[in-house]
Amino acid sequence: MKDLHQMAAASRKAAWALAASDIQQRNAALLAMARVLNASKETIFAANVQDVEEATAANLAAPLLSRLKFREEKLAAVTAGLEALAKLDDPIGKTTYACELTEGLQLYRIACPIGVIGVIFESRPDALVQIASLALKSGNAVLLKGGREALRTNAALCECLRQAAEEVGMPADFAQLLTTREDVAAMLKEDELIDLIIPRGSNEFVRYIMDNSRIPVLGHADGICHVYVDKAADPDMAVSIAVDSKAQNVAVCNAMETLLVHEDIAGEFLPRLLPAMQQKNVRLLGDEAVQAIIPVEAATEADWATEYLDYVLSIHVVKDLDAAIEHINHYGSGHTDCIVTSDEAAAKAFMIRVDSAGVYHNVSTRFADGFVYGFGAEVGIATGKIHARGPMGLEGLTTYKYKLLGSGQLMAEMKSGERQYTHRLLDEECPL
Amino acid sequence: MKDLHQMAAASRKAAWALAASDIQQRNAALLAMARVLNASKETIFAANVQDVEEATAANLAAPLLSRLKFREEKLAAVTAGLEALAKLDDPIGKTTYACELTEGLQLYRIACPIGVIGVIFESRPDALVQIASLALKSGNAVLLKGGREALRTNAALCECLRQAAEEVGMPADFAQLLTTREDVAAMLKEDELIDLIIPRGSNEFVRYIMDNSRIPVLGHADGICHVYVDKAADPDMAVSIAVDSKAQNVAVCNAMETLLVHEDIAGEFLPRLLPAMQQKNVRLLGDEAVQAIIPVEAATEADWATEYLDYVLSIHVVKDLDAAIEHINHYGSGHTDCIVTSDEAAAKAFMIRVDSAGVYHNVSTRFADGFVYGFGAEVGIATGKIHARGPMGLEGLTTYKYKLLGSGQLMAEMKSGERQYTHRLLDEECPL
Repeated sequence: MKDLHQMAAASRKAAWALAASDIQQRNAALLAMARVLNASKETIFAANVQDVEEATAANLAAPLLSRLKFREEKLAAVTAGLEALAKLDDPIGKTTYACELTEGLQLYRIACPIGVIGVIFESRPDALVQIASLALKSGNAVLLKGGREALRTNAALCECLRQAAEEVGMPADFAQLLTTREDVAAMLKEDELIDLIIPRGSNEFVRYIMDNSRIPVLGHADGICHVYVDKAADPDMAVSIAVDSKAQNVAVCNAMETLLVHEDIAGEFLPRLLPAMQQKNVRLLGDEAVQAIIPVEAATEADWATEYLDYVLSIHVVKDLDAAIEHINHYGSGHTDCIVTSDEAAAKAFMIRVDSAGVYHNVSTRFADGFVYGFGAEVGIATGKIHARGPMGLEGLTTYKYKLLGSGQLMAEMKSGERQYTHRLLDEECPL
Repeated sequence: MKDLHQMAAASRKAAWALAASDIQQRNAALLAMARVLNASKETIFAANVQDVEEATAANLAAPLLSRLKFREEKLAAVTAGLEALAKLDDPIGKTTYACELTEGLQLYRIACPIGVIGVIFESRPDALVQIASLALKSGNAVLLKGGREALRTNAALCECLRQAAEEVGMPADFAQLLTTREDVAAMLKEDELIDLIIPRGSNEFVRYIMDNSRIPVLGHADGICHVYVDKAADPDMAVSIAVDSKAQNVAVCNAMETLLVHEDIAGEFLPRLLPAMQQKNVRLLGDEAVQAIIPVEAATEADWATEYLDYVLSIHVVKDLDAAIEHINHYGSGHTDCIVTSDEAAAKAFMIRVDSAGVYHNVSTRFADGFVYGFGAEVGIATGKIHARGPMGLEGLTTYKYKLLGSGQLMAEMKSGERQYTHRLLDEECPL
């Protein structure tokens, strides 16, 4: 077991240096990462071959094995990502509020790094590079814990990133790798040194983290996404959106798990849906109203709260829009939910009252993604409501500070009336 | 003990209604609150008289007694605050990002309420009205727990606010009062129904809350604020800023607790500081370097981490700017810290590297306040780094959701290349 306290202290020290770095230096580090990864690819691939062999011997499921593999194609994607990230605007230093408080006293709210972030992610090794590079671009230090199947690959990748940072004069400790569950447990205790934990995983896993740390947690948990087919839906559009949301890729958090159908349109819509879903080999489960219209298995209460991540869909007929909204707010995970309708008033009510990070009108839930949203890259999709919500890009890795520039102003002068508040909004960047 | 689960469920239901309310209705509720409070003032004052009598009998300290008293003057301040709040812009519904993702598919990021917020605050009854009204203005429901000395006053005030909400057709349960510590403990378990806890109090209290809940916590804890007198400081300005920061009001979180002085200026500055602080009856503690220059008591290690909230100041001589920054980042509470200097490079380094919500140049720390910052009102001053930092106004009580407006777009079309991403930033409000 590593000395997590020492590691966290080293991260903190690296974070101070990163906070004072300029964007040219941070971008140079990103480009150096791409260079070092390419130059070290034989070492990385060899480590990955060992990881994959061991995982194969341990009978890891095929989709997981394919995510674990890291060869030329993934290296090319990862280095292209680094080069694209280097071109994005600096998320740090932007002035987001500027106000003259009284004569000669200017207040600026400035975006700044959070500091030290602990990220726990699944066995995809490319995630390590994505997360570490987003952290560095936004001036943060990271403690990284990946899936244990990818241990050797992650170690090789992390070493490359650390070397690249050092090459451009930045601290290698901006990224440090944790290797065991005990490391994670020890990390959760370092609330004096670590500012934020980002766990990617199941609801249970995110809850475990929350229960065992006083460090703020931005959970990236289940996606129980819904499509609601309103009575005013175009049935053809509804079928294609449902099929895309469910079956375009079943293993992702933005795939639909439950389809809600207004009772007035169920008789027309469900018989059209059936063959389209059958063609994609989707197993259908439904309530009694659904079973009365098309041949499906019976859905149970547990189905409404299940993230299948598979070719399975539960279908529920609802009385009206209100019932659909209530169902989603009760069983959903606050990820992404869609209404298909040509009724703008219904769409508006749905989008205001459904309490999810993404509320969609007439479009597949599969669009919930940081790249798709135009953020260039993402740390993940936050399912909480505090700080960052939905696809979380560079902005989610920043906080802000208030800079107040004066010339000797005193509160005693304000209280005595010697000086008055002006509260004049300014349209300028902070000069310091 | 109340049934907190039932109360939290009622808050959640009220929150759905608030999220769907319009700003005219929320502003009408604020004005109704002012009306009902004025109309019920005899009841409120009578309740307060009982609270004050009981607290007097229990020997409550004089400053706390004065904070507990709620009579004409405070009622006038509170109703004026409600009327001012009604005039502020709607914090809900603003579009903060708009982007065309592909032809006919528009993404909008929209400010929306957080939902249900639990707030635990001290014995000042006016805080109840301030917090509840900020919550309503931003579309949130609140569970309120005030100091137990103010129980009767708080109950009378809360009843007025609930009645006012009902008068304009909004749910009375937007505000509900908790009365015991057991209520608080029960509230902390309702993570399925409550979105955020805001505890105002000591570091220990905030830590207790964090340790006992998986609900996100925005702590409003200690203020260990520093003034650093740089070698390039104007000594007269440094003296007046130090006196104002320490003694203008000692009982507040933005008062200075520790003064740091560059060794090159200590011999000139400290003898000027001494009489100014003596005139305000401030007791001075210092390290050995300070003691060698002016007559002060010895400061111990514990002093650097103490929030006195009293006429006491610890003074530490530092070797240079780096040492000052390190001291602040180590012992400070991340609240507000000031550098006095005429050297802009030193000011810039201080403001980037000091990891506090407020970093000030040549101005008293006493300016760290939501009203002063131009936010109209504040829930408190957040000492964490996630979501909201520093004085927390209406904006801190909001989150956002992504609205995606389409016309049947599918991910399969994007993957096949049938459609292309445009990622064209839009300068428009969301139409839905």
